[in-house]
Amino acid sequence: MAEEAAQEQPSPTAPRPVRCIVKLGGAAITNKGELESINEESLRSACAQLRQAMSESDGDGAPGKVLGMDWSRRHGDPADPAVDAERIAGMAGLGFDTNFIVVHGAGSFGHFQASRSGVHKGGLHSTLVKAGFVATRISVTSLNQEIVRALAREGIPSVGMSPFACGWSTKQRKLASADASQIIQSLHAGFVPVLHGDAVLDELLDCTILSGDVIIRHLSQLLSPKYVVFLTDVHGVYDRPPTDPNAVLLREIEVDDNGSWSIVKPALLQGNNKGVAAHDTTGGMETKILEAAVIARLGIDVYITKAGTEHSQRALKGDVSTDSEDWLGTIIRSSK
Amino acid sequence: MAEEAAQEQPSPTAPRPVRCIVKLGGAAITNKGELESINEESLRSACAQLRQAMSESDGDGAPGKVLGMDWSRRHGDPADPAVDAERIAGMAGLGFDTNFIVVHGAGSFGHFQASRSGVHKGGLHSTLVKAGFVATRISVTSLNQEIVRALAREGIPSVGMSPFACGWSTKQRKLASADASQIIQSLHAGFVPVLHGDAVLDELLDCTILSGDVIIRHLSQLLSPKYVVFLTDVHGVYDRPPTDPNAVLLREIEVDDNGSWSIVKPALLQGNNKGVAAHDTTGGMETKILEAAVIARLGIDVYITKAGTEHSQRALKGDVSTDSEDWLGTIIRSSK
Repeated sequence: MAEEAAQEQPSPTAPRPVRCIVKLGGAAITNKGELESINEESLRSACAQLRQAMSESDGDGAPGKVLGMDWSRRHGDPADPAVDAERIAGMAGLGFDTNFIVVHGAGSFGHFQASRSGVHKGGLHSTLVKAGFVATRISVTSLNQEIVRALAREGIPSVGMSPFACGWSTKQRKLASADASQIIQSLHAGFVPVLHGDAVLDELLDCTILSGDVIIRHLSQLLSPKYVVFLTDVHGVYDRPPTDPNAVLLREIEVDDNGSWSIVKPALLQGNNKGVAAHDTTGGMETKILEAAVIARLGIDVYITKAGTEHSQRALKGDVSTDSEDWLGTIIRSSK
Repeated sequence: MAEEAAQEQPSPTAPRPVRCIVKLGGAAITNKGELESINEESLRSACAQLRQAMSESDGDGAPGKVLGMDWSRRHGDPADPAVDAERIAGMAGLGFDTNFIVVHGAGSFGHFQASRSGVHKGGLHSTLVKAGFVATRISVTSLNQEIVRALAREGIPSVGMSPFACGWSTKQRKLASADASQIIQSLHAGFVPVLHGDAVLDELLDCTILSGDVIIRHLSQLLSPKYVVFLTDVHGVYDRPPTDPNAVLLREIEVDDNGSWSIVKPALLQGNNKGVAAHDTTGGMETKILEAAVIARLGIDVYITKAGTEHSQRALKGDVSTDSEDWLGTIIRSSK
């Protein structure tokens, strides 16, 4: 009996396996056209779906009252937050599998400051780059703060962790130092780390921008999540810009051991994978596939889908397979 | 010539000596009676004085136009920030000695969330403590964000660094892990790290609160600043609560090698150092002296004074000596 109990209790030193790393795409959670503007409805919906995915029940039971963990005042709200400490103290637990990591993009935060100053090019001797570094961090960390708060309002025990403050740095734009021990400690303590693309120090260039996608790739290599979900503002990866009426959604992409990828579904596009890059004038999708391919090669399924839909809800639960005809999105997986 | 030039350029590995660690006391920068309310005027004034202290000139020359580094929108401000990138790019440099570290208290941020949940007592198995941990961090990091922005608006290249995200942790409330390498890297790159009292993980208790004063003590031991300044809402340390009309400001306190301290000025209180603790019903001042005494024993002068006064301006510049009859505040120094 004692042994059984010991087995059920995870050892304090062995990290629990991470279930899912979620990318909240900048395009999905901010209004791209407007400087530093959050898409409140999309963010709220993504957080609610994440909570649902974490819930141990399949969502058939009546959802309990959400235990909000943002006890701060909101801007313009004159009332102090109400906290029913007695009720919360009496709760048996969260009833969640909180073993998720959230990474978000910048969207309409940070880009203005970074592009005006050229932070990604480095050179901190330049006053403009130094000021831009500070301004970029202020902008992306203020978005991080709002996302942590939105998650906390949905009862998700989220903790903001800025890569710069965590000591993450690059060398010639490639990740050089990226200690994840505090992320692992936080997961182990039952918190959901929330990271973001950030301005970081670079050994050769002085500084640069570290993207959320690179963070996800690194954490996937390190922590082997069961699956990775990219939430964006379109249904997945298309063979050309999704605004093109002839654009075709790529349903399934297979990645070989050597990293080359091919379109499995729809069948008509098979053998035509060069077509994506040629059509992709927005420049984002080829990069997205290549980043996702690195993760898929590790044997981790990657789901790219539209935030705030039934498809994102299923992806966050890991309830997607290559046989799911009614699931709208792109699966990127290993050919093995 | 080459050798001279090499000597002028600090080596990339050797950290520059830190000039000053500044504590922005919670009482000085927030409105204590009102939940999560910043004392904007006091904060602005503290940031302006800090900038003045960093300036290489003695402030005799006309101050240049401030290079604001907060390019984010402010709440309720409909206009996009104006950034004159060309002018900034043409600037020769900041003309600052940025080798400062800022640590701030919580004031009316964080205390409500921490005390309602008992985060300092630990026990993350309790839903209340877990929620309170998240809520406390949201509150203190939102204050940190506002302080970083206020410093950046004054042209100080500030970067927020949360102790929790930096991986700082405690064991039975005593600092157990507190790697300062990212703080040193940031200083070396010309940034001003801005830390704060935070909720952190504790090896034995699960979690607790790490105070700003403990952070300052640790950083002083590690980085040997020339002097340490505590900015607060009263003129310094008194022999009894400063609201008492008979309260006497302690002008100079001497700390022995063994850590015991004695009042040097005013002379009438000499030999009466037990009196402070007896009178100090607020409980804060005895702790403050003890924390400061640890720093003073290292041979580092500690100045405790009122924010937003000519006395704080002089303290931030390090322009205070035990002969300064016209300086209002408390000097805590080693007897050696």
